[in-house]
Amino acid sequence: MPSISQRGNNAPDSPYRKLAPFAEKAKAAGKHIYHLNIGQPDIPSPATAIEAVQLSQHPIIEYGPAQGGSELRNTYAAYYDRFGVQVAADDVFATNGASEGIMFAIGACCDADDEIIIPEPFYASYNSFANFCEAKVVPIPSFLEDGFPLPPIEAFRERITPKTKAIILCNPGNPTGKVYPKEDLAAIIKLAIEKDLFLIVDEVYKEFCYDRPFHSVLRFEEAKDHVIVIDSVSKIFSLCGARIGFMVTKNVELQQAILRFCKMRLCPSYHGQVLALASFQNLDDYLEEVKAEYLNRRDTLYAALSEVDGLTLYKPEGAFYIITGLPVEDAEHFCQWMLDEFDYQNQTVMFAPAGGFYADPKLGKNQVRIAFVLNSEDIKKAVRCLEEGLKAYATISAEVLPLKQ
Amino acid sequence: MPSISQRGNNAPDSPYRKLAPFAEKAKAAGKHIYHLNIGQPDIPSPATAIEAVQLSQHPIIEYGPAQGGSELRNTYAAYYDRFGVQVAADDVFATNGASEGIMFAIGACCDADDEIIIPEPFYASYNSFANFCEAKVVPIPSFLEDGFPLPPIEAFRERITPKTKAIILCNPGNPTGKVYPKEDLAAIIKLAIEKDLFLIVDEVYKEFCYDRPFHSVLRFEEAKDHVIVIDSVSKIFSLCGARIGFMVTKNVELQQAILRFCKMRLCPSYHGQVLALASFQNLDDYLEEVKAEYLNRRDTLYAALSEVDGLTLYKPEGAFYIITGLPVEDAEHFCQWMLDEFDYQNQTVMFAPAGGFYADPKLGKNQVRIAFVLNSEDIKKAVRCLEEGLKAYATISAEVLPLKQ
Repeated sequence: MPSISQRGNNAPDSPYRKLAPFAEKAKAAGKHIYHLNIGQPDIPSPATAIEAVQLSQHPIIEYGPAQGGSELRNTYAAYYDRFGVQVAADDVFATNGASEGIMFAIGACCDADDEIIIPEPFYASYNSFANFCEAKVVPIPSFLEDGFPLPPIEAFRERITPKTKAIILCNPGNPTGKVYPKEDLAAIIKLAIEKDLFLIVDEVYKEFCYDRPFHSVLRFEEAKDHVIVIDSVSKIFSLCGARIGFMVTKNVELQQAILRFCKMRLCPSYHGQVLALASFQNLDDYLEEVKAEYLNRRDTLYAALSEVDGLTLYKPEGAFYIITGLPVEDAEHFCQWMLDEFDYQNQTVMFAPAGGFYADPKLGKNQVRIAFVLNSEDIKKAVRCLEEGLKAYATISAEVLPLKQ
Repeated sequence: MPSISQRGNNAPDSPYRKLAPFAEKAKAAGKHIYHLNIGQPDIPSPATAIEAVQLSQHPIIEYGPAQGGSELRNTYAAYYDRFGVQVAADDVFATNGASEGIMFAIGACCDADDEIIIPEPFYASYNSFANFCEAKVVPIPSFLEDGFPLPPIEAFRERITPKTKAIILCNPGNPTGKVYPKEDLAAIIKLAIEKDLFLIVDEVYKEFCYDRPFHSVLRFEEAKDHVIVIDSVSKIFSLCGARIGFMVTKNVELQQAILRFCKMRLCPSYHGQVLALASFQNLDDYLEEVKAEYLNRRDTLYAALSEVDGLTLYKPEGAFYIITGLPVEDAEHFCQWMLDEFDYQNQTVMFAPAGGFYADPKLGKNQVRIAFVLNSEDIKKAVRCLEEGLKAYATISAEVLPLKQ
């Protein structure tokens, strides 16, 4: 029997989907589940995008350009005007979701055993892509109590070794909802330049900033050879299944390597590109309403959670997530119990245990990530379930839970 | 300025697309080009697949299951009945094209510095994916004069080291058109079992076998833990832009690793899966005609090439490629010249220089890969251009070509 690779053995499982079997069992038992566990919005994709696909007549679904269609790349590059950045179509690479963009970015920066510094908690797939490239994630903790600010520059500096090739930030943050102020970004840019590091910034939630304007790292022209931006249509346009993302870089050497990576896998999805192009061509009509809706959901969720006893809370500034500390020892057990043993009026709620977003297994054990991807009424009902669930869990947990021993 | 990774620096460029700027220049000058350089068929995709997309009404293009939708995986698993193989939906992973399947297969078998043995010439992206995984391709030459048979088992055995983790075969072969007889596959299976190696077989052209029945390596039950099959809808259904491929393996440990890789990048394209499902549901209606068409093209091309002086030829048994030896020293220069300097009645033809399909830079220099992806009339016209081009090139090459020095 042949043995699989270390990279195969070490590939982390998804923390988002671990509880799926319990959710299926709960559904089979007739419970309604509020899914606040994954970043799958309930907001319709742009009608113009759906129509563009329905109207597409081309009789052969052919290969397109490896880098993405030129109309799509031109349209996407022009979209950066609103962020105060000059982007050329040549700087843009359409990818199979932000996922492939992250993989290509890490692959172009790191060889086996190289290191990437990432503030934690972070989007868990960064770990998976680093593992696929046999690179090592070096985490820096940030803390819920403070609202997950960027860790001090000194903490980055301490972790830089000759093996360090890149820093990854997510701005606005998944799972934290943190929006980094311009000054913090300026400080990290300075460090990246000083230490000759790439700065990979995942900006897929950039349209969703509630209290502070978004500042793209592409605006720091002095760092044009250091910055790699990752983007996607998944969240902006509720097009998670389109699998179209973007990588933007102005580093010419990097562009050449990324183009060779792109050619290796031939091209992005034809219909994904149709969806993406139509969406960007009708951006304003669609996005104004969607942004107002998310702001309303953020406020509804934060207000509802503020009424629940025993939570550790902060107000997320962007994206559509909040990490909340629960008055339990093991949030993963609580989440499982909510699906498996609990219901309130035949309803329950599903969260993502936040431990999976930390590289350090000691961190985040009593935290959950809550995605505000449902409408405000459902969010209120879900928080009611949480409140009732916490009460019931408190009465039983002292007696029966093995985790309390 | 940060430096990019070895894997980024070493990523090979596509041999298919190298001549693209010359083709664009020729087109701009008003020449008609017969594109026999890439595996993009001119055959329409199944009308039922196009319709399925046009009729799709779902208002949110959502994430699907990481492994691919269950209806698609069930339908695809059932399709294996016709190849005499029992495949379960759990054995099937839908991927972003065969490309991602190859990447995941190599990644699950190999760590950095591990080795993969591949008969050459081979599909050039194998090299790119191995490079991305920082694994090393160890080639074994096979020869045009013999019709590119499987190299002797002894040649594989000699190249096996403690670092060897896998053998890759392409059957039917791209770029060779070779269909391996069952006995040859049995011999390589025996070796893989003896040496505890994975056997990755790219079967994307399996529907196109002209002279010999196709034999899937999945039929060797004794090797169920060794075999990984790669497949795709791109060629079967002329759906290259759908970006849906499949990986099939019965090795449970490998399945778990591949599933974790799949979860890392979330899911395959929504509309790609709609296209694939509709295509497999109407397989027979579509495929009978297409298979007859390719057989006819193979015969037309072979007959036409047989009339041209100075070619080294064999009859391809499958896929839609033939490698042909030309009476020139440098086929890449000839191909470029055909685009840049030559026309016959304002037409010319584009081939893929075959050097890019060999790992050994000394091999294949006078060869081209010809894809029979155009209709028979166009194939005849293209071969006429080749014939006239070779004559013209012979008269000038002695005088002016730097390569002849």
